Amino acid sequence: MKASVFHGLRDIRVESVPDPVIQLPTDAIVRVRRATVCGSDLWFYRGLWDWKPGYRTGHEFLGVVEAVGSEVGSFAPGQLVLSPFTYSDGVCEFCTAGLPTSCIRGGTFGGAGDDGGQGQFVRVPLAETTLVALPDGIGDDPQRLAAASLLADVVPTGHHAAVSAGVASGSTAVVIGDGAVGLCAVIAARRLGATRIIAIGHHPDRLGVARTFGATDVVDQPEEEAGKHVREITGGGAPHVLEAVGTQASMDLAFASVRDGGRIGFVSVPSAVKRLAVDQMFSRNITVAGGMAPARAYQPALLRGLMAGEFDPTPLLTMRVPLEGVPDGYAAMDRREAIKVLVEVT
Amino acid sequence: MKASVFHGLRDIRVESVPDPVIQLPTDAIVRVRRATVCGSDLWFYRGLWDWKPGYRTGHEFLGVVEAVGSEVGSFAPGQLVLSPFTYSDGVCEFCTAGLPTSCIRGGTFGGAGDDGGQGQFVRVPLAETTLVALPDGIGDDPQRLAAASLLADVVPTGHHAAVSAGVASGSTAVVIGDGAVGLCAVIAARRLGATRIIAIGHHPDRLGVARTFGATDVVDQPEEEAGKHVREITGGGAPHVLEAVGTQASMDLAFASVRDGGRIGFVSVPSAVKRLAVDQMFSRNITVAGGMAPARAYQPALLRGLMAGEFDPTPLLTMRVPLEGVPDGYAAMDRREAIKVLVEVT
Repeated sequence: MKASVFHGLRDIRVESVPDPVIQLPTDAIVRVRRATVCGSDLWFYRGLWDWKPGYRTGHEFLGVVEAVGSEVGSFAPGQLVLSPFTYSDGVCEFCTAGLPTSCIRGGTFGGAGDDGGQGQFVRVPLAETTLVALPDGIGDDPQRLAAASLLADVVPTGHHAAVSAGVASGSTAVVIGDGAVGLCAVIAARRLGATRIIAIGHHPDRLGVARTFGATDVVDQPEEEAGKHVREITGGGAPHVLEAVGTQASMDLAFASVRDGGRIGFVSVPSAVKRLAVDQMFSRNITVAGGMAPARAYQPALLRGLMAGEFDPTPLLTMRVPLEGVPDGYAAMDRREAIKVLVEVT
Repeated sequence: MKASVFHGLRDIRVESVPDPVIQLPTDAIVRVRRATVCGSDLWFYRGLWDWKPGYRTGHEFLGVVEAVGSEVGSFAPGQLVLSPFTYSDGVCEFCTAGLPTSCIRGGTFGGAGDDGGQGQFVRVPLAETTLVALPDGIGDDPQRLAAASLLADVVPTGHHAAVSAGVASGSTAVVIGDGAVGLCAVIAARRLGATRIIAIGHHPDRLGVARTFGATDVVDQPEEEAGKHVREITGGGAPHVLEAVGTQASMDLAFASVRDGGRIGFVSVPSAVKRLAVDQMFSRNITVAGGMAPARAYQPALLRGLMAGEFDPTPLLTMRVPLEGVPDGYAAMDRREAIKVLVEVT
């Protein structure tokens, strides 16, 4: 099959790799129809993670079941399915507690040992408890297929930011970052009932999307001034801050934007966060929560919401490429020319 | 009057200072009967805070109302009262939300501008909403007076650790630190229903107190081994970790002891905490909450519990001194010879 493979700094290639096969009775093979490029993919693309040539790329995908192992009872070949970005057994204490990212048998797609989502096929371990069935008919509707593909990671991740920040009905929330995660955090804050949503970013077009997603205020200023401005318009900061960038500057801005007693929900890989303001956490009773989004736990409800038309995340997909175009997609996201790239595999 | 005054590194003196007077109609003057020395007092005593000679010491006290301003209606001279370690207006958004430590008009006793608790009298700003009436009869009962004095700070602070860590009925909690705050955190974890409480410290006598307060396990090992041991006996860490030391080693131990998806409640001044393990917070979805305890918000319920005999914190008071003995009390706590010092002023 063809799949995208990491070769080095800003060097991603779509090339021939072995077809995956059922290795365990709990496996399924999924023929990928849609994949997406994640903001976190840019960490290894930019050489900021210790990735080795040969690692498979991508962890966001949906597709059609091609084959199943003997212990996979809920899915049969031909079924359209969504995958979360991690696989999980569904029965361990963490899965049953709603934290499948900590599953004791789980793992993440892509990298050293697993197929990546940006390829023709993916071996899905623990398929019975990992995959989510998609409704009939979506497969023939490119728009809904595109929308559903965003439930693999970015929509649940935005949702996790809002949940972690404790966004409540009638509340004020600040969203830091106008990338795909930040925009999904705006969607989530609105769904959880925030009535004032202040989106902070540096790209007028993306902040425009934030407005269509429910942001009531947009702020486009350097970090220090943005924090001051947020404190001014909120009279001291917001009780809920959704941090969706993962840099030191964005985390510092989160502390500058949060009200005493408030919560910062952070969901972006904090590869560039070196310190949290523990002195402020103490003196101002700021809670910091969040982490890698437990996407599988959120997907059933988010899928129902999507199908019911409660939200439409597809404006995030500003670039579409075939599988062979994955390197172009990375390059466009690296240059911030695309918010998020949809890979139309088949 | 006589009051304890900071002069420099390990130099505290009880000396004559001006008697406080009513400055604002919201003030009260309290004649101190009992004060205590706080673990956080050791930060300036050891030269780790930027304190100036002349600052008053102490923020934990109870006593008898001596005089009140014209706007203080609930208290009259002769009333026995408990003070939290901060004063607060009771009406601002933070006070009404249960966070009086962030009161927009509030402050902390001691230091540059306010009387300290370790003296004969204290001017209490915002007295109507700061002070808590103590029940009749306590004033004649040295044991109950001693117990009530611990509600000024250390008992609420232990309680805040348990609340911040989300301790729930039937849960397992780890308490890091066998100082006075840690021991009060054990009390609090038990009151909130934890059925397994693992206390970690380095002093067999204090860990013995932890057992009498409800600890089911005690661990006395170097930090790295302690974390490993906790993970072993809990099968992967505890969901609730109460951090009651405030050093880098203790915070690192909190991360080593917490279960994926768990909460660290931290309540000790983190003057020696330089970093939180943000990478673990992300990958393991660890929440860090807590801060300066909103003592005034907790005191009414804690006082009812104390009066009902639900707990007895007085084993913490291993040394008693008159006001003139405050320097000896600091020295004993500095050398860890005393868990906590009661100052019997009058």
